Amino acid sequence: MAQNDSQVPVPLRNVKVNNSFWNRIGQKNKMQILPAIYEVYEKTGRIESFRHDWKEGAWYTPHVFWDSDVAKWMETAAYFLGEQADPETEEKLEHLIDLMEKNQDPSGYFNSYFQTVAPEKKWSNIDLHELYCIGHLIEAAVAYYNATGKVRFLKIMEKSVDHIYDVFVEKQSAAFKYPGHEEIELALIKLYRTGGNKKYLDLAKHFLYQRGRQHQDQENDNYRDRGIQQHLPVEKQTEAAGHAVRAGYLYSAMADVAVETKDKKLWDTVLTLWEDITERKMYVTGGVGTSFVTEAFTYPYDLPNEYGYTETCASIGLIFLAARMMRRDLDSKYGDVLERALYNTVLGCVSSDGRSFFYSNPLAVDPKLDQYLKILKKHEMSNRERIIPATSRRKDLGCMCCPGNVSRLFASIGEYIASESVHDIAIHMPIDCELKIEEGILSVLSDYPEKSNFTLQFHLHKPLNRTLYFRIPAWCQIKNVTCNGQEVPFEKHLLRGYIAFEPGIEDKTEIMIQTGMNVKLVRAHPSVKESAGKVAVQKGPFVYCLEETDNGPQLYNAYIDNKTTFEEVYDPNGLQDIPVLKCMGKAIKQSSNSLYFTEDFTYVNRKLTFIPFCARLNRGVGEMVVWVNEYRRD
Amino acid sequence: MAQNDSQVPVPLRNVKVNNSFWNRIGQKNKMQILPAIYEVYEKTGRIESFRHDWKEGAWYTPHVFWDSDVAKWMETAAYFLGEQADPETEEKLEHLIDLMEKNQDPSGYFNSYFQTVAPEKKWSNIDLHELYCIGHLIEAAVAYYNATGKVRFLKIMEKSVDHIYDVFVEKQSAAFKYPGHEEIELALIKLYRTGGNKKYLDLAKHFLYQRGRQHQDQENDNYRDRGIQQHLPVEKQTEAAGHAVRAGYLYSAMADVAVETKDKKLWDTVLTLWEDITERKMYVTGGVGTSFVTEAFTYPYDLPNEYGYTETCASIGLIFLAARMMRRDLDSKYGDVLERALYNTVLGCVSSDGRSFFYSNPLAVDPKLDQYLKILKKHEMSNRERIIPATSRRKDLGCMCCPGNVSRLFASIGEYIASESVHDIAIHMPIDCELKIEEGILSVLSDYPEKSNFTLQFHLHKPLNRTLYFRIPAWCQIKNVTCNGQEVPFEKHLLRGYIAFEPGIEDKTEIMIQTGMNVKLVRAHPSVKESAGKVAVQKGPFVYCLEETDNGPQLYNAYIDNKTTFEEVYDPNGLQDIPVLKCMGKAIKQSSNSLYFTEDFTYVNRKLTFIPFCARLNRGVGEMVVWVNEYRRD
Repeated sequence: MAQNDSQVPVPLRNVKVNNSFWNRIGQKNKMQILPAIYEVYEKTGRIESFRHDWKEGAWYTPHVFWDSDVAKWMETAAYFLGEQADPETEEKLEHLIDLMEKNQDPSGYFNSYFQTVAPEKKWSNIDLHELYCIGHLIEAAVAYYNATGKVRFLKIMEKSVDHIYDVFVEKQSAAFKYPGHEEIELALIKLYRTGGNKKYLDLAKHFLYQRGRQHQDQENDNYRDRGIQQHLPVEKQTEAAGHAVRAGYLYSAMADVAVETKDKKLWDTVLTLWEDITERKMYVTGGVGTSFVTEAFTYPYDLPNEYGYTETCASIGLIFLAARMMRRDLDSKYGDVLERALYNTVLGCVSSDGRSFFYSNPLAVDPKLDQYLKILKKHEMSNRERIIPATSRRKDLGCMCCPGNVSRLFASIGEYIASESVHDIAIHMPIDCELKIEEGILSVLSDYPEKSNFTLQFHLHKPLNRTLYFRIPAWCQIKNVTCNGQEVPFEKHLLRGYIAFEPGIEDKTEIMIQTGMNVKLVRAHPSVKESAGKVAVQKGPFVYCLEETDNGPQLYNAYIDNKTTFEEVYDPNGLQDIPVLKCMGKAIKQSSNSLYFTEDFTYVNRKLTFIPFCARLNRGVGEMVVWVNEYRRD
Repeated sequence: MAQNDSQVPVPLRNVKVNNSFWNRIGQKNKMQILPAIYEVYEKTGRIESFRHDWKEGAWYTPHVFWDSDVAKWMETAAYFLGEQADPETEEKLEHLIDLMEKNQDPSGYFNSYFQTVAPEKKWSNIDLHELYCIGHLIEAAVAYYNATGKVRFLKIMEKSVDHIYDVFVEKQSAAFKYPGHEEIELALIKLYRTGGNKKYLDLAKHFLYQRGRQHQDQENDNYRDRGIQQHLPVEKQTEAAGHAVRAGYLYSAMADVAVETKDKKLWDTVLTLWEDITERKMYVTGGVGTSFVTEAFTYPYDLPNEYGYTETCASIGLIFLAARMMRRDLDSKYGDVLERALYNTVLGCVSSDGRSFFYSNPLAVDPKLDQYLKILKKHEMSNRERIIPATSRRKDLGCMCCPGNVSRLFASIGEYIASESVHDIAIHMPIDCELKIEEGILSVLSDYPEKSNFTLQFHLHKPLNRTLYFRIPAWCQIKNVTCNGQEVPFEKHLLRGYIAFEPGIEDKTEIMIQTGMNVKLVRAHPSVKESAGKVAVQKGPFVYCLEETDNGPQLYNAYIDNKTTFEEVYDPNGLQDIPVLKCMGKAIKQSSNSLYFTEDFTYVNRKLTFIPFCARLNRGVGEMVVWVNEYRRD
């Protein structure tokens, strides 16, 4: 594959996720997650606010970013409509589009907060999310257009964009030059790719290249500037910095623009930022953004467990970025990061019943610490507390960005499965699915991520005259590959973690790939202070954790033997898809009440039960840890 | 020894600390520490403020607790005068006393802040340290009286106390009922013990028993109330809570009152509080008060290293308490805690040149974290930063309570050496000294804490008809005890860590005690989350640490073999008294740039150099850790 020959996703309408893990997530999304989110939106006035008839004293007060929440609901609902007609949902959507059409300012301006609560503040403050909200509405409009072919919503948003172009490019009349929270850049590129109007790409580039321009070469040391990635012009940024969601969206937009404009230098900048994140600033769960202060990246290897912030949306931003990387530079490592974020932090955002959500996703939880921080917070004595508690999921998080983001990601997961170009087709997520491609149907029969055998079946009306790349996740060890029963010497066909099948695959071909997916002990770079010398348990893309519910308290006094073997148990009361892992570990024996002593430690056996991190804290409040001490035997 | 027969200290004037470790500290205190403190006091206006001629726009602004700083200087200077005449120092003291005499309100009220800056606010706010300042001035007056026999200062303070008695007991006209910051209780008992006036004891008891009385049985859950130990009546408090300095002073005052009033129940309460501190809430360095928020105790076993606050003054409060415990209930464990606090946190407060000080004394320092917290602080984004940096000592800490407190403690260290009653005499701190007692002179020839051989020589004009108790610190293993060359079967004579010598010791007796003081690996109770499974290195009372200066960075990637042996090196450039400890440890080999990997750890040798914690961070900013991973070999 030519390195500059970036692929585009096999579009959602041509991807069918079959009966599998992801199909069940899809059902949960439709039946539980999205309805639960909508309920909160209705209850809080988010839906109501689209009427633009808010008055002082009303039962709700719009917030500057509420439009983005509703937009995410609209986008997700649109994806569902694309799968299956649903008059009720379509009516809800049409009703919201009616309101937008009615309430959009003749200029094209639309924002439910500013048009009702603070009209005088339009375009006055970089921090107030106006462009961010428009971005999400554009994404919703594109999704609705793709799902239904209807153009009304798209036209409304195009009118908005024309207005923005006028304000930010032609007249430069706003009090700021680019969005405080990146997002519209991604939306504009989507819009450009939908209709082909270069003006949208230009506007995205305009926002990108205005950013941080005021500081030129000299890095600005203002933490707030770093917070919104305006400490340097984007092409000079080399360290992942600031608000981690914004960073993920920005770098994704940079990747898009680099692909669209064939800007190799900009691509290399994105690569540098990618490496900074994934080699120095990412949790093993694919979480990013260590600090709750400005929800931001901090410094290399600063990955504390209990105090980790790691917002759900930040992992979604990382998934966006990883998808762009893998579509251009086929390398399995991008998919590995995507899966880390997806199967751990993002999946784990949602409760087992699909109706409550985590915002912050630290890798260790201690209710005693949480309790103490809550007391301090009550007395306004500390902002060391997590902004939203990490001990239990909530239905209404106040700031609802994460649930809506998770829901739209799940509903569009098909877009991440495969991508293609004239010369190649690549399957990045090896899940059970059917891909409609130019040449016919490519079916993947897969039990991934539960197990790791893959069968590719081809029902083609003409031979597949493109190279087919099939990604093998880092946690799968290839055992055997056959093509129509003939063994394939796969080592020769491995390219950066993908098995490459040469052009010429014919109808009725069957490729079988058997891999092993054993439980692994994962270790962190010794520069990660809090996890150095410890191990995390992982099977497939799932990182595991210990919970107090299964293991009792004092989880920091648990040791895994480095030679241990795990028993895999499918717990009917727990996690039907993914096994629970059990092993005999160790613990330091508590010999006396002495706080300090000089006797050697004595270790006793301790039964350990690990559950997937994504399934944590569904059974009441308790301790939870990912990183566990190692009991080393040579 | 009868359990209720509390001993009183062998008074300072009868204790001579000989040429030894503590003599050198004494010299440093006199030549460097106290002058450095005085310089800051002069520079900031603390001395000037005693003139009471402050006016709006003056070059300094008095602070509510400045009087206490000056008082500590006066107290320390008085101790020095007690040792050796010094007209210059005496003149400075007399000048301050002149100013106090001149400026004391006819009512007896004295406070340099309230009398000049805010006269209308006298006795209006429990948080403003008025009684605290008076307490320290009383202690200074007692010290000056003991040193010089002059009564003028004492009279001034007695007049103050009469006024306070009037306001708080007779008229109850103040806006609060007891001090927000305990201290005056201790001072009143000192004053009572100096002059015998029971009114002072009564006032101390009044303050003690008014405290928290408003909540009766029901514990108040207000964190601010816990902060100043008014969440419950004192006799119902069972958990060390709130501001750790205040707590130490309060519990010490409770111990004093329990002894003076023979209140066994109150004593048991103090014992319970002592156990809560020393079995659940104390660092291995004798540091207490985990949280920087209200500088307070938190919950059991919450002893984080980097985020530990552990103010110097809080360890001094613990020393006060330990001294009271050991004088009543002879048990070596009290002296052990006293030494932990003294030889680690308190000694370590002061820089090697004696002119800079630590306020907060966390057990691990990472300049990268500090730098990040400073950036946040600059932008007022977090109060997670330590109030006063822990990466380097400063001459002027702003809040100067700690340096003055350390200086007065060092100057009065003789008071902690021995105590006596009619029936007993006990040597608690086995350092090189000469004690003048009723029967003559008792000399301790000792190289402790550097080494651990002790010779007791008696020059008596009559036989010692009391039991003599000699404390053997927990870190000394008795090898051999002789009395006039005859071996003593010491096991029979051991009583809770003291060797007891029966009454009847005669003139010219020589007792020799040889003990071993090997390097020990100390472990923490497995409930201490951050230190569980790690080891600290200790030799004698000195806890050691690793510093970046000697060991390079990444100190969390250092492992001590549990079977290791240490080389003791006396470094001429470093710590002349106390050896540096060297050993061959291990480190995890950094094999690649991968942030996460599944290969087993590979360990490589890493030379480790440990220095005493009290000598840390004298050679520039760098990482420092006390607790080190253990590389276990069975």
